[in-house]
Amino acid sequence: MTQQMGKQSLQFEKAPVIVSSASVTGKKEGEGPLGQSFDMVCSSDKFGEDSWEASESAMQKEAAALAMGKASKSPKDIRYVFAGDLLGQTIATSFGLMDYEIPLFGLYGACSTCGEALSLGAMCVAAGYGDYVIAITSSHFASAEKQFRFPVEYANQRPLSATWTVTGSGAFVLGKEGGKAKITGITTGIIIDYGIRDSMNMGAAMAPAAAKLIVQNFKDFGRQPQDYDLIITGDLGYVGQEILWKLVSEQGYDISRNHRDCGIEIFDKEAQGTQSGGSGCGCSAVTLSAHFLPQVESGALKRILFVPTGAMLSQVSFNEGQNVPGTAHGVVIETCV
Amino acid sequence: MTQQMGKQSLQFEKAPVIVSSASVTGKKEGEGPLGQSFDMVCSSDKFGEDSWEASESAMQKEAAALAMGKASKSPKDIRYVFAGDLLGQTIATSFGLMDYEIPLFGLYGACSTCGEALSLGAMCVAAGYGDYVIAITSSHFASAEKQFRFPVEYANQRPLSATWTVTGSGAFVLGKEGGKAKITGITTGIIIDYGIRDSMNMGAAMAPAAAKLIVQNFKDFGRQPQDYDLIITGDLGYVGQEILWKLVSEQGYDISRNHRDCGIEIFDKEAQGTQSGGSGCGCSAVTLSAHFLPQVESGALKRILFVPTGAMLSQVSFNEGQNVPGTAHGVVIETCV
Repeated sequence: MTQQMGKQSLQFEKAPVIVSSASVTGKKEGEGPLGQSFDMVCSSDKFGEDSWEASESAMQKEAAALAMGKASKSPKDIRYVFAGDLLGQTIATSFGLMDYEIPLFGLYGACSTCGEALSLGAMCVAAGYGDYVIAITSSHFASAEKQFRFPVEYANQRPLSATWTVTGSGAFVLGKEGGKAKITGITTGIIIDYGIRDSMNMGAAMAPAAAKLIVQNFKDFGRQPQDYDLIITGDLGYVGQEILWKLVSEQGYDISRNHRDCGIEIFDKEAQGTQSGGSGCGCSAVTLSAHFLPQVESGALKRILFVPTGAMLSQVSFNEGQNVPGTAHGVVIETCV
Repeated sequence: MTQQMGKQSLQFEKAPVIVSSASVTGKKEGEGPLGQSFDMVCSSDKFGEDSWEASESAMQKEAAALAMGKASKSPKDIRYVFAGDLLGQTIATSFGLMDYEIPLFGLYGACSTCGEALSLGAMCVAAGYGDYVIAITSSHFASAEKQFRFPVEYANQRPLSATWTVTGSGAFVLGKEGGKAKITGITTGIIIDYGIRDSMNMGAAMAPAAAKLIVQNFKDFGRQPQDYDLIITGDLGYVGQEILWKLVSEQGYDISRNHRDCGIEIFDKEAQGTQSGGSGCGCSAVTLSAHFLPQVESGALKRILFVPTGAMLSQVSFNEGQNVPGTAHGVVIETCV
């Protein structure tokens, strides 16, 4: 039986496996340090569509197709899809996945949605509710800038604390068996408000939630930082990383040696002008799929804690002067090798 | 063990119960046919807040508090909350529930979200992942009009096919035991696009998805319409109801005698000028909580199929000329008496 661990965690006795995964990105991501690892890089960021939103939908559709193909599965083999994106009313997801006709649970956890989708997907498979499910998320630089800040056509300036929303979609097929990596546990996040009001500094808004989630994971599972080969946050960037390390060290833990951030990994800060790093719920998804997961599958990494982070704002909440609270969802992934 | 039934359904062998529920609404809903049944009716629709969005958050907070109170539970007893609303980036939910510090799975299924939340909550309890969870949704007339159509201050005209978004929040505490109604099964929806492009006719956009879900439920469970005392859709309204009956009858089923729609029940069409009926993911939630669930709890209704329906559009997708696809999530609720 699956065990409830501590306040916020579950440990799966029969751990669901990640059967396959796929990553689809835009041009800039393809030019970055991980460019050679992505399954598909689009040369235009438009993916053959007329609008940024439709382009993001096309990415999701493609990522799901690639992940199913790698697992030798077709849509009728997939019992549920757990999916989300950053856009209002998650339109990238509904228009992107509609044609597959797979029962859909639409999710919103801002940039933490990849962690939320993997968590619910793993819970579902572990309980025997489906033999195979898909967890998928996406983000697109242009649709996100338009949604949260300014249309890119305005060419507004970006402060050093700003992150660059990743144009990408990552999809994961989860199942009972047949993969080289497994999800052995999850830690589900609460929403934390540290009073940040700067929509150009998402790292600072999310770092407190990430710190709280990581420390809670240590407590719930009775682990220390060194019990994980890597602790990987989603998109804190350079600014958020510094805050994270400080907040976690105040709780008596040092994660500075084995912490990585997908937003830092995906771009070359200097060469690509991406300021604090990459962000978006496509950022953590494609970086996990293309960069970290293969290392778990090969056994080079034995156990990682994957912690996508999200900033809970909308254009309306921001314009109305609300704070930007953060959240985070933790997924423990271990090698089957 | 829980059984996978047919293409899209689950049957819970140990059915989770609805331990308690609560409904909070605005003034207009309080003046309607169900007004006396709601737990709390606010006289101003502002709930003491400065913005419509914050008012919606306040409703969610209150509904969750009332439901926990009825179940004699406090936030620390609740393992997860499954929650959503209609606003971009689901801000009503994050700001409304933040203070409870309960691990949160944020959901988006448009007006079908109440069915999605009850489904995932029931799956979670049935698998032993939590002793108690909350499923909660909300909508607010003024925040929704601003989000999807025009700010109410514009005083634009409403066609006869338009629905009136319900100002309300409904919360449900689910657990392993201790309630008089139980969730015995679920049918999870896919997204259906019938080519509707009129954001003032949501009933027509959602009816095809509702019809497909209801017929799939009959097939998956091997049931006929008369096996349910009532089949209750979320917010098809008068316009959507007519389409639903027709589409279902084309599949060989007659649901005209035992079909009800929360959007039709909640307002007095003539006296309240609500055109096709009520809508919003608060509509089905408060109508289930205040009107239908008590009848199941008393044994007057033995088994119902609750089918909240959603229209998958955003202001952006609508302005970009996209269709308005629909979805629906089915929840089978039976009396414990």
